[in-house]
Amino acid sequence: MNDVSRVAGVSRGTVSNYINGRSVRPNTKLKIENAIKTLNYVPNATARALKTNRSNYVVWIIPTVNSPFFSELSYHMQIALDALGYKMILCNSNSQASKEMAYIEMAKTQKVAGIITMSYADISHLVSPDIPLVAIENRVTQNFPLIISDNYQGGFIAAEQLYQRGARRLLFISKTPVVGVSALREKGFKDFCQQNHIHYHRFIASDSVQFIDDFEQFINSNITYKSFNYDGIFSDSDEYASDFWHLLLQHHIAVPADVQIIGFDAAKIYARQQPMLSSIRQPIEKIVHIAVQQLQYQLSKPNTKSSLVKPIILPVTFIEGMTTK
Amino acid sequence: MNDVSRVAGVSRGTVSNYINGRSVRPNTKLKIENAIKTLNYVPNATARALKTNRSNYVVWIIPTVNSPFFSELSYHMQIALDALGYKMILCNSNSQASKEMAYIEMAKTQKVAGIITMSYADISHLVSPDIPLVAIENRVTQNFPLIISDNYQGGFIAAEQLYQRGARRLLFISKTPVVGVSALREKGFKDFCQQNHIHYHRFIASDSVQFIDDFEQFINSNITYKSFNYDGIFSDSDEYASDFWHLLLQHHIAVPADVQIIGFDAAKIYARQQPMLSSIRQPIEKIVHIAVQQLQYQLSKPNTKSSLVKPIILPVTFIEGMTTK
Repeated sequence: MNDVSRVAGVSRGTVSNYINGRSVRPNTKLKIENAIKTLNYVPNATARALKTNRSNYVVWIIPTVNSPFFSELSYHMQIALDALGYKMILCNSNSQASKEMAYIEMAKTQKVAGIITMSYADISHLVSPDIPLVAIENRVTQNFPLIISDNYQGGFIAAEQLYQRGARRLLFISKTPVVGVSALREKGFKDFCQQNHIHYHRFIASDSVQFIDDFEQFINSNITYKSFNYDGIFSDSDEYASDFWHLLLQHHIAVPADVQIIGFDAAKIYARQQPMLSSIRQPIEKIVHIAVQQLQYQLSKPNTKSSLVKPIILPVTFIEGMTTK
Repeated sequence: MNDVSRVAGVSRGTVSNYINGRSVRPNTKLKIENAIKTLNYVPNATARALKTNRSNYVVWIIPTVNSPFFSELSYHMQIALDALGYKMILCNSNSQASKEMAYIEMAKTQKVAGIITMSYADISHLVSPDIPLVAIENRVTQNFPLIISDNYQGGFIAAEQLYQRGARRLLFISKTPVVGVSALREKGFKDFCQQNHIHYHRFIASDSVQFIDDFEQFINSNITYKSFNYDGIFSDSDEYASDFWHLLLQHHIAVPADVQIIGFDAAKIYARQQPMLSSIRQPIEKIVHIAVQQLQYQLSKPNTKSSLVKPIILPVTFIEGMTTK
C-alpha cells in the first residue's frame, strides 16, 4: 500500500479508501489504478480480511470433486486463489439442492470473502447481491457474473470433426434427461448434421445410475456381422464416451479404425497424461482465470450493485486423443 | 449437551469439561461416555470452535487433487468432515516442500481445528504436538497418528494374481526414483516371485515428466514377431499402468488376452464408473474414516501428549477390471 501511495502521489489513507471500495475522486482513482498497474500490485486477502470484517475464505461449490473435470478445475481454482491469499473451502454438493443451500448459508455465517459455484439448485433466494459470487455453467441470479463454455459450438465442432475424418453413420449418446448444457451440445451436433444433410441417430440411456447396462444392450443389438452399425460417436460427456469406448473394445470393435469417438470436457485424468479420448476441451484455466478476476472485481467494488450481467461465453477446442483417425 | 447431561445424570458443566478435555472423575467420565454412546452424540464443530478459540476449519494437504486417487480421497474426506461440522480447506502442494510448509504456517495462524496431510516434505520442525494432526502415507513426526495402506502386501497380491491367471513372463514398471511406498510395492512383488521361483524384469522410466516416451521406446524394443515379450505387468501406479495399456493397444497387442496388467490404487475416475484397469485398491473410505476418527480423538483430548504412535496399516484388495483374464 505504501508503494502504491508513493507511485500515485496520494496519501496512504486514500489508497486504503480505494481498495476498500469507498469513494475517491475520479482523478485520484486514475492515479491509483495506474500505480497499481505499474507495480503489478495484488491486494492481499489477509490484509483486506482484517479491514473489512470478512474472512479470506472462498467457498467453492461443485457437484463432486471425484470426476476429472471437477478435479482439474478445483486444482487450478485453489492454486489461483492461493496466489491471491485466499483459502478455498471445498464443498461437494452431490447436486443436492439442500446441500448447496447449506453451503451458501455457511458462507454467509462465516462471512467468507466470496462464493464461486457450479450450483444446479435454485439458490437465487438465498444470495443477497452484497455477497460476492461468481457462477460457472449455471445462472444463479441476473446480478452475478456467469461463465460458460460454448456448449453449442462444442457439439457443432464434434460433428464437423467426425465428418472430416470420414464418419458418415453418426450417433449421439447420453443419458436421460438431455437438458441444459447437454441439450445445447446435442443442438450444435444436430445443426451441423442438418446443414450437411447427414442423418444422425441418438441413444439416450434411461437408467441414470446403471447406464452402462443400457449402453451394453444397445451395442449388442447394433452389431451386424461383427461390425458396429455406426462409425462416428459423439457424447456430451467424457464419462459416457469412455465407457462406450471400453464396451466396444470388449466386443472387439476397432476404435478408431472402424468407429471413432468424441467426448466432451477433455479434462485431464492425470495432470501429465496425454489425452486418451478425443474430446471437446472446456478451457479450464481460462474459466478459473475469469472466475477469480470477476470475484476480485466484486471485492474491489463492494458498493457497486450490478444488474443484468451478460454471460461470459468461452470458446472450446477439439483435442485429438486415441479415438479418432 | 443437555441430553448428555440428562442421560448421564451429571451437570451440564461437567459434560462441557469432558468435551473440552478438562479433567473429570473416572466414574463421571464413564457415565458421560456411555450417555454419548446411547445418544450417538457427535460434538458439534461450531460449538467447540466458539469455546476453544479454534476455528472449525480442517486443513487438507495433498500433492494435487487432479488425480483419481486424490480426488476420490478428497471427496470422501470433505463429506466426512462436513458431517461433523468441519469445513475443509483444500491445499495442493505439488509435492513442494515450501508449499507444504506455507500451508502448515497458515493452519497455525488461522487457528484451525486440525490438519490432515499427505506431506512429502519434512515438516516435523513446523508442527508442535499441540496442534491436532493426522498423517496419511508419510510419517510427519512420531507424535502423530500415521495411516498407511499395506503397500508390500499390494505388490505381493499383484504378482500372485498375475501368476494365478497364467502369466509367467512378469514385468514391473515404474518411473525413477523407486523409493518409499513404490519400493515397498515392488518388494512385495519381488518376494512373491522369489518364493515361487519366477524371474521378473523391471523397467524404470528415467524421465519423470516424459515417461510415456520411455515406455513407448521400451515397448518398441520388446516386440518380437508382433507379440510382446512379457505377459504379466504390474505397476506401482494406475497412471503408468493405464498409459502402458493404451500404448500396447496402439501396437495392436491384445490386453488381457496376450498381456495382463495390474495397477495400484484402483481409485475411481468417475464415482459411478466400473473399474477399467485391474488394480490393487487402497481402502479410501477406511482411510478417511480412521483419519477423521484420529483427528476427533486428538480434539477431544487436547491435553494428552502422545508419544511414539504406531502406524495404522490397512489391508488392500485386488479389483478386477478389463486388463486381467
